[in-house]
Amino acid sequence: MRKAIIGVMGGSHVPPAIEQQAEQLGRAIAAQGWILLNGGRNCGVMAASARGARAEGGTTIGILPGQNTDDAAPDVDIAIVTGMGDARNLVNVLSSTVVVAMPGGTGTASEVALALKNGKRVILLGFPDSPLFSAHRQAGQLTVANTVDEVIAQATATIEALRHEGV
Amino acid sequence: MRKAIIGVMGGSHVPPAIEQQAEQLGRAIAAQGWILLNGGRNCGVMAASARGARAEGGTTIGILPGQNTDDAAPDVDIAIVTGMGDARNLVNVLSSTVVVAMPGGTGTASEVALALKNGKRVILLGFPDSPLFSAHRQAGQLTVANTVDEVIAQATATIEALRHEGV
Amino acid sequence: MRKAIIGVMGGSHVPPAIEQQAEQLGRAIAAQGWILLNGGRNCGVMAASARGARAEGGTTIGILPGQNTDDAAPDVDIAIVTGMGDARNLVNVLSSTVVVAMPGGTGTASEVALALKNGKRVILLGFPDSPLFSAHRQAGQLTVANTVDEVIAQATATIEALRHEGV
Amino acid sequence: MRKAIIGVMGGSHVPPAIEQQAEQLGRAIAAQGWILLNGGRNCGVMAASARGARAEGGTTIGILPGQNTDDAAPDVDIAIVTGMGDARNLVNVLSSTVVVAMPGGTGTASEVALALKNGKRVILLGFPDSPLFSAHRQAGQLTVANTVDEVIAQATATIEALRHEGV
Repeated sequence: MRKAIIGVMGGSHVPPAIEQQAEQLGRAIAAQGWILLNGGRNCGVMAASARGARAEGGTTIGILPGQNTDDAAPDVDIAIVTGMGDARNLVNVLSSTVVVAMPGGTGTASEVALALKNGKRVILLGFPDSPLFSAHRQAGQLTVANTVDEVIAQATATIEALRHEGV
Repeated sequence: MRKAIIGVMGGSHVPPAIEQQAEQLGRAIAAQGWILLNGGRNCGVMAASARGARAEGGTTIGILPGQNTDDAAPDVDIAIVTGMGDARNLVNVLSSTVVVAMPGGTGTASEVALALKNGKRVILLGFPDSPLFSAHRQAGQLTVANTVDEVIAQATATIEALRHEGV
Repeated sequence: MRKAIIGVMGGSHVPPAIEQQAEQLGRAIAAQGWILLNGGRNCGVMAASARGARAEGGTTIGILPGQNTDDAAPDVDIAIVTGMGDARNLVNVLSSTVVVAMPGGTGTASEVALALKNGKRVILLGFPDSPLFSAHRQAGQLTVANTVDEVIAQATATIEALRHEGV
Repeated sequence: MRKAIIGVMGGSHVPPAIEQQAEQLGRAIAAQGWILLNGGRNCGVMAASARGARAEGGTTIGILPGQNTDDAAPDVDIAIVTGMGDARNLVNVLSSTVVVAMPGGTGTASEVALALKNGKRVILLGFPDSPLFSAHRQAGQLTVANTVDEVIAQATATIEALRHEGV
């Protein structure tokens, strides 16, 4: 059975407190034995979450938008080079067992939307909830977490349920 | 100079009144001499807007997610087959001079987000505004229109400004 | 019924005689009432075939690899902006009723291969035949043409057969 | 410094002897401490090379064309889900440090062509050489190997040269 992959989405320019939380989230994901996946670039939530996961001995995957690994974060172990720009946002979410959205802009918003459209479980950790997603929230596909611990608890429940279904 | 391309985004399942408005919008776009572009499938806002544009003698482009034209709306003149699923949403917005968002779900939300991220002018016609987009709204990149006439007026102003900049 | 779309693939740097033939091919495609599709950039077979088709009053579609229309050939009427680099080669062939391959390099080779893989009819006009494609040649999916007239004759036969099948 | 990624391309339906060689190649890649990457599906060269790499304790990445992991080979550790069909062939080669081509059809041919176009080092192990690639062969970008040992020797030389260049 493959390890669960947790996709962490979020902005390329975020305040230091958010970077710290992203690093903490990366650590917590690795501590669960899960793989961290993100957009792979060397900035913001991407660089910080990879740093945390790797510090804890986890595996980190970066799905890069460019033609090569020049802008990959140093803590990305496995750099997937798409050459497809923002079209790689779809790959980010389809490859994730669970998607976590931290503060970010329209890129992160597109990932939340694509994740929901494709049936993925989404956890908002600082990314603003929106009436756009209310049907998915009511269905339990999208939830809000206030702390890293809550993310881990919610993701654990989802992963266990999927295992039970044999996914 | 190429004709302006107006991308009309919106749901695949919408109420009859929305379909009627989509058809009216398609007619108005064609009446301006603009090209209509949408996601090309034979349902909802896509089929209706193409029907309107073609009834007015306009050109209609459908950017299809599938491997062939089997699910193309009959009023799509030019079917672009991407074989890339939702990754084609990026093509929809990058190919458009102006993007109009009618009522829809997460697919439409992803298109609004990707359009804003890539610097496109976005006009909301029934698609709900959201705090997610507030920075873009304040910058004038995103506006709200209440009628098809308002869409045409706003799009005209944008197209003229871009022409003036030589784009 | 939609007009047939003829995809013309070929190099971005080719000798003048090939550019002239590409222009002649573009003219012949337009004269048949077919739409010309190519990779859209302002060089080589792309620019020349678009120039020919437009001179004859035809419609020309360019599927661009970049993020905008800056490098589009001036004779491209409809610029589809993919932002996906070489991944757009798949869009080129999936969108074409028939694919014609003129002299080119590895980009053109990838398009011939992807076209054959996806069941498209391919006509080689100057692009070298290869044992790689022999099974497809034996099956009649790939043929060689020595002149523009032969391309038109072969494409006509294919388009009529597809119409007969109701495609 | 990231581990080298060796992309192994080849057919989904190949003779048993080729599957055995693919498995042997996978083992040899893992024994070098390199990561194996392929198209991820549960057939042919993909399944066999993953099986070999995993048996040797290596990491295996599968870049899947579909919308989910349903058709992933069991020995793929990390399944990247693209939802982009054959457009994922570009991701396969851009993500690889070195591309190895085993016997295959037009899918493999498209990967060889895209790899060469994007400056990747390509080693043919059973995939037929072609005059289409002669310029790249003369430049040393494409070489032919007759055995798995030769592949490893050639890949080692390339990886060392790239490390020396700081790539």
